[in-house]
Amino acid sequence: MSADASLSTRGPVLVVGAGLVGTSIGLSLATRGVEVLLSDSSPTTLALAREVGAGRALTPQDVPTLVVVSAPPDVCARLVIEQLAAYPGAIVTDVASVKASIARSVLGAVEDATRYVGSHPMAGSERSGPTAARADLFAGRPWVIAATERSAPAAVRAVRHLAVDLGATPVEMDATGHDDAVALVSHMPQIVASLVAARLRDAPEAALALSGQGLRDVTRIAASDPQLWAAILGANATHVRAVLAAVRGDLDVVLAGFDRVVDGGDHGGLAKVAQAIEAGNAGVARIPGKHGGAHREYAVVAVLVPDAPGELARLLADVGRAGVNLEDLRMEHVAGHPVGLAELSVLPKAREQLESALDAAGWKVAG
Amino acid sequence: MSADASLSTRGPVLVVGAGLVGTSIGLSLATRGVEVLLSDSSPTTLALAREVGAGRALTPQDVPTLVVVSAPPDVCARLVIEQLAAYPGAIVTDVASVKASIARSVLGAVEDATRYVGSHPMAGSERSGPTAARADLFAGRPWVIAATERSAPAAVRAVRHLAVDLGATPVEMDATGHDDAVALVSHMPQIVASLVAARLRDAPEAALALSGQGLRDVTRIAASDPQLWAAILGANATHVRAVLAAVRGDLDVVLAGFDRVVDGGDHGGLAKVAQAIEAGNAGVARIPGKHGGAHREYAVVAVLVPDAPGELARLLADVGRAGVNLEDLRMEHVAGHPVGLAELSVLPKAREQLESALDAAGWKVAG
Repeated sequence: MSADASLSTRGPVLVVGAGLVGTSIGLSLATRGVEVLLSDSSPTTLALAREVGAGRALTPQDVPTLVVVSAPPDVCARLVIEQLAAYPGAIVTDVASVKASIARSVLGAVEDATRYVGSHPMAGSERSGPTAARADLFAGRPWVIAATERSAPAAVRAVRHLAVDLGATPVEMDATGHDDAVALVSHMPQIVASLVAARLRDAPEAALALSGQGLRDVTRIAASDPQLWAAILGANATHVRAVLAAVRGDLDVVLAGFDRVVDGGDHGGLAKVAQAIEAGNAGVARIPGKHGGAHREYAVVAVLVPDAPGELARLLADVGRAGVNLEDLRMEHVAGHPVGLAELSVLPKAREQLESALDAAGWKVAG
Repeated sequence: MSADASLSTRGPVLVVGAGLVGTSIGLSLATRGVEVLLSDSSPTTLALAREVGAGRALTPQDVPTLVVVSAPPDVCARLVIEQLAAYPGAIVTDVASVKASIARSVLGAVEDATRYVGSHPMAGSERSGPTAARADLFAGRPWVIAATERSAPAAVRAVRHLAVDLGATPVEMDATGHDDAVALVSHMPQIVASLVAARLRDAPEAALALSGQGLRDVTRIAASDPQLWAAILGANATHVRAVLAAVRGDLDVVLAGFDRVVDGGDHGGLAKVAQAIEAGNAGVARIPGKHGGAHREYAVVAVLVPDAPGELARLLADVGRAGVNLEDLRMEHVAGHPVGLAELSVLPKAREQLESALDAAGWKVAG
C-alpha cells in the first residue's frame, strides 16, 4: 500500500513501546500506508500490536526516519538516548505524560540533542495495552509539543506533522509549563478519584447499592493502571505534590467547618462548606467543552429503554423516523435493574414532536 | 382525568416544596391522573411548577391524604411537623437527603408520630428547580424508606406505594444506616469533586485547554447548588466528617510518599502512590452497574461525528440500517473542535459488520 498523499509524515516510523498509545499511533499510520516498525521489551505485547495491524517488527536492517518512544516516564529518557545513538539520522520524540525530567536527562546525556523533541498527546483511556488501541485515539485532541532549547526547527516540524497526521491539534508549550498544567488537569484528579474510590473497598453492599451516576463519574478514572500511574506521578512529583498540598489545604478548611458544626454545634461552620462548593462551581465552569454547560441549551427527552439487545437501536431508529435531529445522547444504566435511561438532547422546538412520536411508538417518555 | 388504575397512590397528594424533586414527583403523579396539590414559599417557583404540569396550587379547602415534604434538610423537620398538625388524617413523608436528624426532630416534637415515615429517592441532577423536573426522575432508582420506631405499618406501606408508583425501587434502611451510606457514596464525593474543581479557578487558560474527559467526569457534580448542599452536608455533618477525615488520612499517606520522592530523592515513596491507586481499582470495581466493567465485554467501534445538527442521528440511522444491535453509546465532545467521537458498543461478533457498513456509508471509523 502506498502512503496516503495527504500525510506529511514519511516512514519508516519506529514506535518503541507498543502499549495503548504506541499501538494507536502505529495503527493510524500503518492503515494509511506509512511503513511502521514496532519494538517492545515484551514479545507478547509486540505480537499483539502486530496482530491488530499497527506495523511490523523492527529488524536490524531498518533505518527509521522518525522514532516515537511510547514508554512509561521512568524508562523513557533512557530509551530516547538509545534511539538517538542507534539512528543518527532520525528525529526522536517521546509521548510520555511528563516532559521536564525526561528533557533534563536527555540533554544531560546527549551532546547533540537537536534531533530530540518531547511531546504529549492528551489522549488515553482507563484501558491499556495494544488491544485497547484505536487509530483515532488522538482525533481532535490537543498534542503538546515541548521543544527543548536545543531542538532543531526541522525536528519540531516533523513532530507537529505527526500530531496533525494523527488528527490531533499541536499545542506548543515548554516542558515545565506542560508538567504544571497536567499536574492540575490530569494527575491530581487521577489521585483524588482513586482516594474517593478507595473508600468504597470496605463499604457495606447496602451502601454501594445507593450509588448513582455522580459517584460513577467521579471514580471512572480510578480504574487506571497503578504501575503506569506511579511512574507518571513520580516523574512529575514536584508539581503534583504542590497541587495535592493545595487540595489538602482546602480540605482542611472544609474539615474545620465540619468540626465547628459537629463539636461546637455552630452551623456557621457550614459557610466554609458552601464556599468550597461555590469555588467548585466557578472552577467547573472554566473547563472548556460542551459538558461545561452549552448542552443545556437543548431540551432533554428522557426515555426508558429495556436493557435487552436491540432496544437502544430500536429507539434510535424511531428517533430517526420522527425526523428530529439528535444533538447528544447519554445513557444511564441502573444498577440491578433491567432498564436504562436514554437522555436525548434535541433543540427545544423539536421536543414536543419527538415526545409525541416516541409516545406513539410505545416508548415510556418523561411527561 | 381519572387516575391510572395501575397506581396504588390515591390523591390528593400535597407536595410541599416545588424544586427539582418535588416538581418531578408532582409531574409523574399528575400526568397519570392523581390529584396533586402544590405549595412553595416562593410564588415564582410555585407558578413554574404549575406551568410544567406538576399540579395545582393548594387551597385552604384541600384535605390531602399524603403529604410529601420536598425541602432542604435544614427546614424539612419544621415543615413535616407543621404538616402533621395541619392534616391530622394524612400520612407525611419527606424526601430529604439525610434522615436521622429530621427523624429526631420530628419524634421530639410530635406526640403521635405514627403517620410520619422518612424517605429518600436516590435521584437528582446537578440542575435544580421546577423547570429541570422530569416525570421519570426516579425510574429504576433506589428509594430509601426510613421508617422510625413509631411509624405505623400503613404509613410505611403508603410511602412504599409512592416509590413504586414513581418507578423507583423501595429499599428499607434505618435512618442512621442511610446517613452513613450517603455520606460515603454521595456526600463525600460531592465535596471532593468540588475541591478538585476549585483548583481550576485560577488555572491558566493553556492548562485548561488540556482538559480531557477524565477531568470533566470527576468534576461534573461540582456544578451543584452550594446553598442546598451546605444544608444537606450540615444535616449529615457527623458522618460526612468521618468519611472526609478518612480521605484526608489517605491523602496524607500519598503526600508523605511524594515528600520522600521530592525531598529525599527516594522513589520508594512511589509505592504509597501505587497502593493508593490499587486501592482505588478495588473500590471502583465494587460499584454496581454496567459502567463498572460489564460493558467491556462489548467491542467498541469509535466513529468521528461532525458536530453539526443531524449528524449523530444520521450515524444512528446508518447503524440501524447495518442490522447491528447497539448495546451502548457514549459521546465524547472535543473542546474547541468541530467533531465528537461516538463510541458504539456492540457484540464482538458484530464489530466487523458494523465497521464495514459505516465505512461504506462514508464514516470515519477506527481501523
